[in-house]
Amino acid sequence: MTEPTARRRSGGRASRQAARASAAIDSVPFLTRTLKPFEVMGEEGLALIEENADTLLEEVGVVISYDYALNLFREAGASVDGEVVRFPRGMLRQIVQATAPAQYTQHARNASRSVEIGGDHTVFAPNYGSPFVRDLDGGRRYATIRDFNNIVKMTYMTPYLHHSGGTVCEPVDLPVNKRHFDMVYAHLKYTDKPFMGSVTAPERAQDTVDMAKIVFGEDALETKTVITSLINANSPLAWDETMLGAARVYAENNQAGIFTPFILSGAMAPVTVAGTATQTLAEALVGMAFAQLVRPGAPVIFGSFASSMSMQTGAPTFGTPEPSLVLYTVSALARRLGVPFRSGGGLCGSKIADAQAAYESAATMSATVLGGVNFVLHTAGWLEGGLAFGYEKFVLDVDQAGAAHTFVKGVDLSENGQAMDAIRETGPGNHFLGSTHTLANFEDAFYRPTTTDNNSYEQWLEEGEVDSRTRANKIWKDQLGSYEPPPLDDAIDAALVDFMEQRKASFPDSNV
Amino acid sequence: MTEPTARRRSGGRASRQAARASAAIDSVPFLTRTLKPFEVMGEEGLALIEENADTLLEEVGVVISYDYALNLFREAGASVDGEVVRFPRGMLRQIVQATAPAQYTQHARNASRSVEIGGDHTVFAPNYGSPFVRDLDGGRRYATIRDFNNIVKMTYMTPYLHHSGGTVCEPVDLPVNKRHFDMVYAHLKYTDKPFMGSVTAPERAQDTVDMAKIVFGEDALETKTVITSLINANSPLAWDETMLGAARVYAENNQAGIFTPFILSGAMAPVTVAGTATQTLAEALVGMAFAQLVRPGAPVIFGSFASSMSMQTGAPTFGTPEPSLVLYTVSALARRLGVPFRSGGGLCGSKIADAQAAYESAATMSATVLGGVNFVLHTAGWLEGGLAFGYEKFVLDVDQAGAAHTFVKGVDLSENGQAMDAIRETGPGNHFLGSTHTLANFEDAFYRPTTTDNNSYEQWLEEGEVDSRTRANKIWKDQLGSYEPPPLDDAIDAALVDFMEQRKASFPDSNV
Repeated sequence: MTEPTARRRSGGRASRQAARASAAIDSVPFLTRTLKPFEVMGEEGLALIEENADTLLEEVGVVISYDYALNLFREAGASVDGEVVRFPRGMLRQIVQATAPAQYTQHARNASRSVEIGGDHTVFAPNYGSPFVRDLDGGRRYATIRDFNNIVKMTYMTPYLHHSGGTVCEPVDLPVNKRHFDMVYAHLKYTDKPFMGSVTAPERAQDTVDMAKIVFGEDALETKTVITSLINANSPLAWDETMLGAARVYAENNQAGIFTPFILSGAMAPVTVAGTATQTLAEALVGMAFAQLVRPGAPVIFGSFASSMSMQTGAPTFGTPEPSLVLYTVSALARRLGVPFRSGGGLCGSKIADAQAAYESAATMSATVLGGVNFVLHTAGWLEGGLAFGYEKFVLDVDQAGAAHTFVKGVDLSENGQAMDAIRETGPGNHFLGSTHTLANFEDAFYRPTTTDNNSYEQWLEEGEVDSRTRANKIWKDQLGSYEPPPLDDAIDAALVDFMEQRKASFPDSNV
Repeated sequence: MTEPTARRRSGGRASRQAARASAAIDSVPFLTRTLKPFEVMGEEGLALIEENADTLLEEVGVVISYDYALNLFREAGASVDGEVVRFPRGMLRQIVQATAPAQYTQHARNASRSVEIGGDHTVFAPNYGSPFVRDLDGGRRYATIRDFNNIVKMTYMTPYLHHSGGTVCEPVDLPVNKRHFDMVYAHLKYTDKPFMGSVTAPERAQDTVDMAKIVFGEDALETKTVITSLINANSPLAWDETMLGAARVYAENNQAGIFTPFILSGAMAPVTVAGTATQTLAEALVGMAFAQLVRPGAPVIFGSFASSMSMQTGAPTFGTPEPSLVLYTVSALARRLGVPFRSGGGLCGSKIADAQAAYESAATMSATVLGGVNFVLHTAGWLEGGLAFGYEKFVLDVDQAGAAHTFVKGVDLSENGQAMDAIRETGPGNHFLGSTHTLANFEDAFYRPTTTDNNSYEQWLEEGEVDSRTRANKIWKDQLGSYEPPPLDDAIDAALVDFMEQRKASFPDSNV
């Protein structure tokens, strides 16, 4: 909340209006929350989970199939037995707290789009990792690089996504071992928002770093973090060489990693909230500490992805109460640890952008916003437990992200916010529609949804009883139709293309 | 949250399983929240709003078009100038705090379904007041008493609605001045959950009281509250004889009133959150104090219904951030005042149960549950800004209400909840599907959604690509098809019918 009687400018809304006026290529700033996060347990409960995580790390240990990491941890004081690493109580926490930044700037190639990750900030990024896409016209199909570019462009054009994301969909029309070039190129060419790098092999991480250097300058990465990448654990309690190898490349280059236990409770963790949170903390600590051992001070994000599962079928379920409780719990653990936190998004199990998808996505996003998540993957477009990116779902989710910008500002308690003169002027039994105060606040009064129909029933009927998916279909087509790329220096573009062509020609295509 | 290491029984889930087993006519208990409500401002902000409400009551005053109320307030110390009543600072708060109960039991005719209203409890009631209904088969049409009875029956059969509500839809096939008989009869005959009474005229409130006496006993109402009714203000700052007259009847008979400013911000209140909250507090204080002056100790609920509006069209909008902020604010004001709070529900502007409806309803329900609302009207079925009750929407909303039961329990920190043995037993790299802990928690592990499809894409495709509305359509039909009424003594039933027939015959039909 703002201070009572302190008048304030609603810069976000003004920016949004500007955004609407200039074909929506301006962005609004990432969220800066004024409200305290919602808490689902007190200090005692959080301390218990930390104790338990230490017990797991000490007694059960973590399997790490990467010699380099085994050596680092051994040198740092861990006990290494084959690939099983056990950690003295508190060791990993101490390593992380000693050097990991509580907050960092991820620089965009357009400086006005750089984001702050950590603290009271929340940064929204789109969907990640789907091999399929769906739209109302073509139904469900394998994703291609064309879809990938479309998503990057749509993300660029929406003011409510602050970050371009990474594998916004999986371009399965390109060879597995070369598609990262085209993905990174899209994030550098079709948008000027910050982006994520390849993590499917250490050399692909290196390619990402090399391409970033072409754009940001050879030495720029030493002082600037320009890539944040997603490093998943092999839950339960295991990390592999592929992911940690990619993490190593990024950390060595001062770039950020999101260390995320990816957990379907009941399969990769116990079925309980506390058990899942405990295991998540233990696993994430290993990843974050690894990055600090590679390069003290390299930015890390504590990641948590947790879903529940159908006990009848074993299928993952989303938007249920338990994952929200996990999110709130782990968010509090991350704050206690003092590092940025990634979780949440518009997660759902539904195959289409129907009511199920919306209820589920809203449940997850509510916890995301109220829980104080700092970096949000999957903010928009997620369908089918992540298997598909939905074009219409993307548009609908973006509207929810927009609403969050207004919500997190809290209640305006300035004189204008108190509105006492408005009530005095209007008086009992009259209406406020034409009051001085209403007219003065006309532009900024309420968040303006971009996808909803609030017309009368009769007007809605006359206009063809259009549902929200059909409205969304028109919106993304209009958006792509009016897309114009942000400026990129021709020489830099040519250098990127040249780099990709040389690298692609230097080894054969492969789909592993 | 529960105490660490305290083992506890999850009675709610056990009850739900029992409910599933016995055709869902059992109910689960109303919610008892273990989590602290989400707060959007501190003490200072809340005190400022209270100060401002006092200023409105002192300077601007409230129009009360009801001589009986004018006299009561004059005698209590207010200044009455024509119909404008001005109140010394703090007077209404003092009246309310002196005698209004912080919590009360609303007794149901089946004692096991009585509910606690206030404190940490949340009671869910269905939709209220819609003149239209909609279902997938018949589309949108005027509501009839058949629809009304259907909704009462469906509400009876769902474990997640604890209260039968009141005007669950408006049975427009019956004369306006007599339909209350059939509505109250439905709540006494087709269900044994607690209910709401007629408020459209004082004599209809009296009929409600008289019918309740037939069921509960002539003298029972003196010691038991068996009716809770909805008394709306004529915002801004006005109360009329119809509503206060009905409120008087209920208060005189020791029955509860929900005193609710019904506000479309921008029309009936300023466009700001703080202004709307201030006016809501001022108006509600008048209504609640009136009830206390009629009969000290009569149960009252502080009500708030606030929506935003489209500044382009003037249409009400739902599920936007501002009404959520109003809800959180007024909920905190009600806690400070020390009375139960009513707000929220599954509110939306959408005409159909599409993604818009779900996003909007979820946004409102999230605030409802996290804000600590005690009595929730419109939990299920609301469409079109309240103009229509949706059969499918009802089913989908009920599933969300079900999830809230699990959420509000918070995180189980018992030994079973901590699940350390499960992680020890499973170990790194293995899965938990067959672990002792998973099997032991199989039945209770996760909330089981009733309306979602989490099957594989292929299975969903094979089953006809069914969306959530279509699944919901089948559910309500199955529910009504298997409905059986709760037992009601034949003599009581006959007395109710006799009462209604005599009263209906005693005056002519009218549609005003």
